[in-house]
Amino acid sequence: MNSPALQIPAGAPLDPAIRIDEPRFWRTVERSGTIGPGRPGGLCRLALSDADREMRDLFVQWCREAGCAVTVDRVGNIFARRRGEDAHLPPVVVGSHLDTQVNGGRYDGIVGVLAGLEILRTLDDRDVATRRPIEVVCWTNEEGARFAPPMLASGAFAGVFDVDWVLARKDDDGKIFGDELRRIGYAGSAAVGGRTLDAYFELHIEQGPILDEQAVDVGIVTKGYATRGYVVEALGETAHAGPWPMDKRRNALVGAALLAVAVNDIGWRYHPTGGKATAARLVAWPNKPGILSDWAQLTCDVRHEDPAVADAMASELLDAIPACAKRANVAMKVVDHWMFGAERFDPECMALLRAAAARCGVPALEIASQAGHDAYHLSRVAPTALLFTPCREGITHNNNEHAELAYTAPGVNVLLHAVVARANR
Amino acid sequence: MNSPALQIPAGAPLDPAIRIDEPRFWRTVERSGTIGPGRPGGLCRLALSDADREMRDLFVQWCREAGCAVTVDRVGNIFARRRGEDAHLPPVVVGSHLDTQVNGGRYDGIVGVLAGLEILRTLDDRDVATRRPIEVVCWTNEEGARFAPPMLASGAFAGVFDVDWVLARKDDDGKIFGDELRRIGYAGSAAVGGRTLDAYFELHIEQGPILDEQAVDVGIVTKGYATRGYVVEALGETAHAGPWPMDKRRNALVGAALLAVAVNDIGWRYHPTGGKATAARLVAWPNKPGILSDWAQLTCDVRHEDPAVADAMASELLDAIPACAKRANVAMKVVDHWMFGAERFDPECMALLRAAAARCGVPALEIASQAGHDAYHLSRVAPTALLFTPCREGITHNNNEHAELAYTAPGVNVLLHAVVARANR
Repeated sequence: MNSPALQIPAGAPLDPAIRIDEPRFWRTVERSGTIGPGRPGGLCRLALSDADREMRDLFVQWCREAGCAVTVDRVGNIFARRRGEDAHLPPVVVGSHLDTQVNGGRYDGIVGVLAGLEILRTLDDRDVATRRPIEVVCWTNEEGARFAPPMLASGAFAGVFDVDWVLARKDDDGKIFGDELRRIGYAGSAAVGGRTLDAYFELHIEQGPILDEQAVDVGIVTKGYATRGYVVEALGETAHAGPWPMDKRRNALVGAALLAVAVNDIGWRYHPTGGKATAARLVAWPNKPGILSDWAQLTCDVRHEDPAVADAMASELLDAIPACAKRANVAMKVVDHWMFGAERFDPECMALLRAAAARCGVPALEIASQAGHDAYHLSRVAPTALLFTPCREGITHNNNEHAELAYTAPGVNVLLHAVVARANR
Repeated sequence: MNSPALQIPAGAPLDPAIRIDEPRFWRTVERSGTIGPGRPGGLCRLALSDADREMRDLFVQWCREAGCAVTVDRVGNIFARRRGEDAHLPPVVVGSHLDTQVNGGRYDGIVGVLAGLEILRTLDDRDVATRRPIEVVCWTNEEGARFAPPMLASGAFAGVFDVDWVLARKDDDGKIFGDELRRIGYAGSAAVGGRTLDAYFELHIEQGPILDEQAVDVGIVTKGYATRGYVVEALGETAHAGPWPMDKRRNALVGAALLAVAVNDIGWRYHPTGGKATAARLVAWPNKPGILSDWAQLTCDVRHEDPAVADAMASELLDAIPACAKRANVAMKVVDHWMFGAERFDPECMALLRAAAARCGVPALEIASQAGHDAYHLSRVAPTALLFTPCREGITHNNNEHAELAYTAPGVNVLLHAVVARANR
């Protein structure tokens, strides 16, 4: 195990020929793919569900079998630590998330956590010591599919969200994050954040088609698409769907539907330069036949590679709100908003990935991330790099999401070499 | 009680001076207004809820105290029978419903059932016998606020819906009509329909502003607005709200929102001639931030006084579906549809109401119904008449729905005299 008697001492360069145990790595990915089955080929492993607990339990077991010390913080983030030669040095942290969307795939987030585990196992196999500790992390509720917003617990770790606010989040059934965390046994005692990380590395499937189309094994993420998200509320008045005349109606559902259409139109206007706009969620009350709704809420966002263009898209969205409100004769306002994608990844960590790719003979290209990732939040508190591996045709958040060992292993090997280089700094 | 020794024998004309006991009637309405409180001043007494059970229990108790035999059929319709001189003659039935919308008022349906009870009590007070039995009925789940479609159990009674199909209806939480009926103790043993009614009379608040504006006490309903309802399903594909390009998106929520807007626009186009079109309910899945929905459903309807115009509105709605589907790049189709309002009320029963209004000195006008009512279904199996009483400004399906004794009692007196005339035929 990870004892002072390791044959390759800390600080020694890692033999460029060293590779992960690919079959072992893929066995962990395939085992994960049996926990929380969703639609055929996919997973429905919502944060803090029974399936999430089962996956966490197995992950913790694997980490302990690998000789790691496991700690869980107050928002359920799991850290598995492989000791470094100098226990006083801040750790290099590697990870992602194990939760999925309701129609999620078997790779989104998952390969990033299990890549971290495989790296530790490989170092143990080769008796490799490192100067700094290396930690594998599983962040809680990255998807936001159960508790909004997404990237919730990494946000808490980075100080973006208050811990008590996170613990009080409710799902659509009114169940509370903190209660559910206790229920599945992952309400840990460790403080959330507030400690120094030497660096954070995350491997994730691209969730876009570029690497697959170009047959490149690794994408080194240079930046995120600028994303501006909004929850917009419409307030009207209930009335009978029959007699109530059109000019007296204040149907909140119509206001939200108008905005959903407007948001989609904005996406199309910016499509030529790669912009996207999404009407993601529409809820209304009472939302029943025979009655007009007096409350509705639309969750939507706009995204563009160029932050100035994203701002222009956001302006169009905000300008559409009073127009929709007027047309539906309801009151509408933004009740929540967020932005991400302005994060900057660390040039040194990115250089380590580039060098590792070259050393391993793995083709790599620089790429922008269009999705949100825990790495965005982490970049606020630690030097951070994000590495993409291909997924077939870019299909994701879908049971047809597909990756395979040949798509994924090159990226994990690059990550191995970069992480060891950083940990031996 | 209702014994052969009644002083006024069956067949004798009812003294034109006889009136209901107004304070007693209004006490029952006000007592009902305490069961299943909703928003201030309103009720939330959904079908087959605990509150519905409490109201039904009280109604049954009141009916038994009035000497009635109470039977409950397999879909929970409650019939309270006051015997007639000739037990072999089919009964005259009077009633409506006691369930409400989620933001319902205290009068919609309720005054119709309690008017029936008050009529029986008044006949007992005056020792009036009738040739035919008179029954008061409470129909189950008229609103459709919990189990779709509305007018469910009167539809079963009239043979429009199959009983087993009704019993298998599910609410939004997946609870089953038949199970909930058993849970509240109203899964009766009587056959549903299949027996002859001499006539059916229903009193209901207008749910429109005409009587209130014109200060007329009673509306005799000549016809229903022609209503064409549709449930339209959109099928798309889940994908990530970030990277997935606009031209590959198949967001079912956008398809449904486009149709909701189109339906509302149809309503406005026909507004000059009193047409209405409603986007009432929009549901989607997964309907979460970060993912496109692959399923959505819009429930909508169009209504017009002229059936030919309603058909034209319906054509526009159906024509809009492929256009919306194309624009959202999803598949859309009608999965359920219904129509009502073509029902014809019975000239003889309407004449009885007209005569009773004249005899009581109550101003009456002829009016069209813009909402659906149990009477529509009943008109298929019995001579039927529908009587409206005013509600303030036509506000309904809203906690601000308002009626008062002075609005309502004249109509109940008219109903009393018409029902007795019919029962003595």
